[in-house]
Amino acid sequence: MADLERLSISIEQPLLDRLEVMIRESGYTNRSEYIRDLIRNRIVKEEWERNEEALGTITLLYDHHQRGLSDRLTDLQHDHHHAILATTHLHLDHHLCAEMIMVRGRAAMIRKLADGMRKEKGVLHAELSLSSTGKKLR
Amino acid sequence: MADLERLSISIEQPLLDRLEVMIRESGYTNRSEYIRDLIRNRIVKEEWERNEEALGTITLLYDHHQRGLSDRLTDLQHDHHHAILATTHLHLDHHLCAEMIMVRGRAAMIRKLADGMRKEKGVLHAELSLSSTGKKLR
Amino acid sequence: MADLERLSISIEQPLLDRLEVMIRESGYTNRSEYIRDLIRNRIVKEEWERNEEALGTITLLYDHHQRGLSDRLTDLQHDHHHAILATTHLHLDHHLCAEMIMVRGRAAMIRKLADGMRKEKGVLHAELSLSSTGKKLR
Amino acid sequence: MADLERLSISIEQPLLDRLEVMIRESGYTNRSEYIRDLIRNRIVKEEWERNEEALGTITLLYDHHQRGLSDRLTDLQHDHHHAILATTHLHLDHHLCAEMIMVRGRAAMIRKLADGMRKEKGVLHAELSLSSTGKKLR
Repeated sequence: MADLERLSISIEQPLLDRLEVMIRESGYTNRSEYIRDLIRNRIVKEEWERNEEALGTITLLYDHHQRGLSDRLTDLQHDHHHAILATTHLHLDHHLCAEMIMVRGRAAMIRKLADGMRKEKGVLHAELSLSSTGKKLR
Repeated sequence: MADLERLSISIEQPLLDRLEVMIRESGYTNRSEYIRDLIRNRIVKEEWERNEEALGTITLLYDHHQRGLSDRLTDLQHDHHHAILATTHLHLDHHLCAEMIMVRGRAAMIRKLADGMRKEKGVLHAELSLSSTGKKLR
Repeated sequence: MADLERLSISIEQPLLDRLEVMIRESGYTNRSEYIRDLIRNRIVKEEWERNEEALGTITLLYDHHQRGLSDRLTDLQHDHHHAILATTHLHLDHHLCAEMIMVRGRAAMIRKLADGMRKEKGVLHAELSLSSTGKKLR
Repeated sequence: MADLERLSISIEQPLLDRLEVMIRESGYTNRSEYIRDLIRNRIVKEEWERNEEALGTITLLYDHHQRGLSDRLTDLQHDHHHAILATTHLHLDHHLCAEMIMVRGRAAMIRKLADGMRKEKGVLHAELSLSSTGKKLR
């Protein structure tokens, strides 16, 4: 962990009041940690907007009885095998598969991969979660 | 797969034009599949708003050198062991861990679990992706 | 953790000497823990021999370009969806997939599932690792 | 997939008979595939004996209530973060964790990592499954 510096900010009373409420309701016990997390969230957002190297998790829900779908999804993932860190597959019931896929690479590429999966017939839901490689978050 | 029914909708010309553009840009080759996916997304959103049984993926990024953090995150997950389907852990570098955790249960519980992890010191980023158990999506 | 009891055993000097060497070479710092692990290994072995409920990890290596293989492996896993806890898939290179599949159920069923995967064309290697649900190991 | 060549072997009648029985009982429908798998198994074994680059899956069963154990296991894995491809964690019950860890690297290093985990107090079972990076299996 990096050493901690002091940072002072001036803030209007009503805004501070609202902040205190939000911190209390969120369950944080440490105000600094709450604000550091706000800053980190903003960094993650910028990494995605600027198409920097990012980390994303794609959650897929699909019906594996759709003919050829498993093959197509595997092919699509292999075309990005340098970027996909791991895929974990859960068999929800006799028909439904849930998959979570962790991808590291340019933000735009990750989005495109998620889009490519979403549009496949038999894929019922595809959701991309934007995260970070963490290099700028410490 | 369920049998397909025909559904006709009336739509203004400009809205239809915009729809066609969006479908083309998204890479879908099948207009019906595009609209079915819009409907499914709305169902997922409602499942979460109504606190129904849902599926969520929590993506965590953390510094495992934070003392006791791995133990605390494991404890927190075990308190929800009935709900957590699987956790996949990637060692990004000597300091950073990325974890993706698939959770099934009431939407509010999944949110609370994600919040509980986010506020831990050493957790740099925690992102919840809202998905579905898929029961209503077919 | 359960409370610890004292257990005394009589042992021939040469056997004890050999034990001490093995413990030292294995890196254990605690002789009791070494012997407890020997007992646990024997329990796991018996669980498998008696076809009790067991836990197994199947590691697969396969060429996903083999036509239809991903579909067949997914189908096979879904036929056992109650038993498969999770499957994690790694894309080793453009051709090769590695998969680790955790299965809980009767030992004979787990073996049969592993055998069913191994014999598929395109599967280069399938290895079953025998573990335990842990109920008898504490 | 590579092109297939013809390979002829001479074999004693009793040995051939036994082979036919084994193939039938194993469920293989293709004799050549059965023999190719025997050859591949031998290659994997040699990769491990010669300490070549290999792939292994470590299956761990442990009691996460053992104080500090999650931290120690995470530290140990991070010391090998270049070699560990992914770790998937299942919460079996309130006490027990099962983990499957895919590792790529020198065979001796993988063994040492498995040994290092096995000897930790609270780890009830640790099993190493020997697989291959597959480079020589095609």
